[in-house]
Amino acid sequence: MRVRGAPLIGVTAAYGIYLALRDDSKNLDSAVNALANTRPTAVNLRWVLQRTQEYLHGLDFNALPGKALEIAQLMEKEDIAVCEAIGEHGLGILQEYWREIGETKKRLNILTHCNAGALATVDWGTALSVIYKAHEAGIPLHVWVDETRPRNQGASLTCWELTQQQIPNTLIVDNAGGHLMQTGKVDVCIVGSDRTTLGGDVCNKIGTYLKALAAHHNNIPFYAALPVSTIDFSIVDGMESIPIEERDGKEVSHISGVTAEGNIESVQIAPNNTAVSNYGFDVTPAKFVTGIITEKGVFEANEASLRKLL
Amino acid sequence: MRVRGAPLIGVTAAYGIYLALRDDSKNLDSAVNALANTRPTAVNLRWVLQRTQEYLHGLDFNALPGKALEIAQLMEKEDIAVCEAIGEHGLGILQEYWREIGETKKRLNILTHCNAGALATVDWGTALSVIYKAHEAGIPLHVWVDETRPRNQGASLTCWELTQQQIPNTLIVDNAGGHLMQTGKVDVCIVGSDRTTLGGDVCNKIGTYLKALAAHHNNIPFYAALPVSTIDFSIVDGMESIPIEERDGKEVSHISGVTAEGNIESVQIAPNNTAVSNYGFDVTPAKFVTGIITEKGVFEANEASLRKLL
Repeated sequence: MRVRGAPLIGVTAAYGIYLALRDDSKNLDSAVNALANTRPTAVNLRWVLQRTQEYLHGLDFNALPGKALEIAQLMEKEDIAVCEAIGEHGLGILQEYWREIGETKKRLNILTHCNAGALATVDWGTALSVIYKAHEAGIPLHVWVDETRPRNQGASLTCWELTQQQIPNTLIVDNAGGHLMQTGKVDVCIVGSDRTTLGGDVCNKIGTYLKALAAHHNNIPFYAALPVSTIDFSIVDGMESIPIEERDGKEVSHISGVTAEGNIESVQIAPNNTAVSNYGFDVTPAKFVTGIITEKGVFEANEASLRKLL
Repeated sequence: MRVRGAPLIGVTAAYGIYLALRDDSKNLDSAVNALANTRPTAVNLRWVLQRTQEYLHGLDFNALPGKALEIAQLMEKEDIAVCEAIGEHGLGILQEYWREIGETKKRLNILTHCNAGALATVDWGTALSVIYKAHEAGIPLHVWVDETRPRNQGASLTCWELTQQQIPNTLIVDNAGGHLMQTGKVDVCIVGSDRTTLGGDVCNKIGTYLKALAAHHNNIPFYAALPVSTIDFSIVDGMESIPIEERDGKEVSHISGVTAEGNIESVQIAPNNTAVSNYGFDVTPAKFVTGIITEKGVFEANEASLRKLL
């Protein structure tokens, strides 16, 4: 859990292979296994490891570390280009919405969940890449940021990122999005994804599904922005086929933050010995997803549309 | 915000009138106004104040403090009886579900949001009264407890209450309920309410609406348990007519808990100067509410049914 965000996990794993081979050229299989087991939900982690193995296949032991570094650096550069392209394709969507409502509204209100920004990728991000491109293009934006319990990536990462780019943003608890959507305060939702199926089911940080339901009931478009490498073309039904990580209950019962004195401190928010359950992700069924924004363009959340990417 | 829970707010206000009159018998109007303005969303606060005023109407100044104490004590006793009756009516519903699933399941899984327990009333609670009565009746229960950001009443109060009664319970983040419902881990949802309209719209702690949507999509019954005094018979449409309190943003950006050394400490979880929005409640439209459990019986969430209470 030191590295988070599907794209960043992938690129970091590629560098992990390089470091393992630099130590010992015979480490390839053990490094691949160890890295694959770190995060069961992320699919592009497996894609990166497979691609690295194929790249290194049949090479001399001596050549392995150098070649592993080469492929890691290549994937790092690719990730930046891919994320920027996601932003450009998503920009088209936001420009269209803004043309529709810009005359009656002061700003386009976007709701996002968790952190799908530059801090989750090498640069740009996925959902936030769309927001960065729209901001660059001059669309007046305001972003509602779900704090995203239990790890508060929205509060600690997304608010920080957006403020760095001088994009107006407001932190809300995860409970608030439904009310904001009911009362006309959200124009569009954009989230990232850890794994999306060929059928268009979107697995993302726990709580995403609840926001998609609220968007659906309030006629608010709901998009997932993601690199094609996070699409799992081998599965259609995400509810059936995607394993959902369970994480340490302490993530829920304890919260880290900064004290008035400026120290980082962890505080317990539940009585001693409270039982805790902590699923990391959920699956938003395709029928609640307006579209899938990728580096190759925007697709409908269904097999017929996503199959074009094969 | 020292007192919370619609029923407890009401009874506390009645004692507040008594204390104000004990200080000075001329304080009635100013005390009523001051108390009415403390919480715009709660409706039974207004009902208690009106009932107290009617009870004291036309009395000698000398008699006011004694009579105010009398009505406060009466309402305190009534609240206990009302909450216990809510539990008994709700028990009937849970017994029916348990008859349906008890042969194939080990326990009845209930999800609740916030704290609608003894700590929100004089005793028993509303939603938790149903759970306490079902536990007493021998139904094997397990309760999923939403932590209920921003104030974490689920984590700090509901888990504590249930554990005191030896009812198995598991703390979850507010984001998790959708996933649990999608995967068959919730059999019924029961929440409290701060104000319910004649049309059956249920205003309750922020985030309730999102759980009702998830219950609706997963065919899980969703009940609100509440005293008749929290029904606002003067309004039908909750979205239009119920003012939603906005609270201090610090409730979101700062969290209080216990440090490893056992001290209560507040920590900041968002960057300095992060903008925060903090709505306290939301409205769940009647169409997502399976039934309204009151001390007078269980009603459908619509005007035709609730009108019988008039």
